Amino acid sequence: MVEDKKKMVLVLGAGELDRALACMNIAVGGASMGMDVTVFCTFFGLNAIRKEGVAAAPKPEEEPKREGVFGARALRRAFALLNPGGGKFMNPSRFSFGGLGRRFMARLMRDARMANLDELIELAASLGVKFIACTTSLEALGIPRDNLRPEVREFAGVATFLAEAVESDVQLFI
Amino acid sequence: MVEDKKKMVLVLGAGELDRALACMNIAVGGASMGMDVTVFCTFFGLNAIRKEGVAAAPKPEEEPKREGVFGARALRRAFALLNPGGGKFMNPSRFSFGGLGRRFMARLMRDARMANLDELIELAASLGVKFIACTTSLEALGIPRDNLRPEVREFAGVATFLAEAVESDVQLFI
Amino acid sequence: MVEDKKKMVLVLGAGELDRALACMNIAVGGASMGMDVTVFCTFFGLNAIRKEGVAAAPKPEEEPKREGVFGARALRRAFALLNPGGGKFMNPSRFSFGGLGRRFMARLMRDARMANLDELIELAASLGVKFIACTTSLEALGIPRDNLRPEVREFAGVATFLAEAVESDVQLFI
Repeated sequence: MVEDKKKMVLVLGAGELDRALACMNIAVGGASMGMDVTVFCTFFGLNAIRKEGVAAAPKPEEEPKREGVFGARALRRAFALLNPGGGKFMNPSRFSFGGLGRRFMARLMRDARMANLDELIELAASLGVKFIACTTSLEALGIPRDNLRPEVREFAGVATFLAEAVESDVQLFI
Repeated sequence: MVEDKKKMVLVLGAGELDRALACMNIAVGGASMGMDVTVFCTFFGLNAIRKEGVAAAPKPEEEPKREGVFGARALRRAFALLNPGGGKFMNPSRFSFGGLGRRFMARLMRDARMANLDELIELAASLGVKFIACTTSLEALGIPRDNLRPEVREFAGVATFLAEAVESDVQLFI
Repeated sequence: MVEDKKKMVLVLGAGELDRALACMNIAVGGASMGMDVTVFCTFFGLNAIRKEGVAAAPKPEEEPKREGVFGARALRRAFALLNPGGGKFMNPSRFSFGGLGRRFMARLMRDARMANLDELIELAASLGVKFIACTTSLEALGIPRDNLRPEVREFAGVATFLAEAVESDVQLFI
């Protein structure tokens, strides 16, 4: 029976490595147990599902519609430079040490034979986890859609998230 | 039927701008879809629903009851000075840059014609979202009740939050 | 009837004092109201349920199984030194000021006659709250099991958390 399949919706709103890892571990765990899992990424949580490095400029049709704002495009480009995507550029919520902390943590996890963030996302997708990127956040942060990892197939807003959340058995904002 | 109305309870416990924005976007989204939405603000999440700037001293009846603690009042005042309220003083969870980050993010959002935090709170309240301020946190942080925005009509503790949460369809701690 | 007992599962994934306090306050509140409460601690959230100070080296059988990685043990030890356990060493998410912020906040709470983190954990345990430490995180961060507070009786992974979460009325990731 369809009704028997448990459903989980995770919102990843944090740009910190440890929270992204927790999110993907829970997603993989749920999918492994046969749950129907959706991960909705918003704000800095989008960085986890982006391709590695600085995003190219969004295509004109993906830019916010407001015209004639002096410097708006330049500002979004500057922000994009400061905000590279991918797990390799995510700092832990403690001990960032200007980038040393994430290397430290990556090494600790590798030594403990744990999957890194990219591997967890691939595994999650292969188990059927659905990744949704928040369109509002993409626009605000100036991230073009083709900067997202191939595992991301859906783009949606808060209404889509809520429609799934009200039908789910587990909802977590991470 | 009353039972058909979906219910959502959000706890805003973070003082970061991006998490506060995510919370209010979800609240507005839920209320727009006809859900019954409560936002319970605690600890630094209270800053989102405070009037702009430094709070005046709490009235004597709102002060913690402990008497004769040397310097207690002065310490809470000092803390109040460091911890101004309102969305204009909230930093994003990344790129705070001593206040530059929040101006950057405010500009990006304005250029993308997105509502700012204050506008989202007004919109949420007009759609019937109920804002509750955590009384324990108000006392601990030395924030007087009249420092809260007019949208906040209820003051309560964890028991009130839990009573609503157990009856809700969606609960998120942001 | 067993079915009438409401169930709550909290994940503490944050190493910040204010989020740990919020978690334990909610746990105590739920247990006081007769709810069945589980707190699953992962990543830096483990610090809340650790004994105070720097952890000793894990026993060999608790070390990750990977052999012959040069420097792996030394690196985990270095990380352990940087990451002491216990509420006294947790900084708030704002105003850390190199440790001053947590003393500030501890004092504010004491003056307001609020329980500190350790007292809340003891109270929670005495009310029947079940504390689970995430085994994967313990390994990654190099924290031995005997470094955890006596209130922690269970060690488990994400599958155990999810099995409880799908049966719960309230789930929050803090």
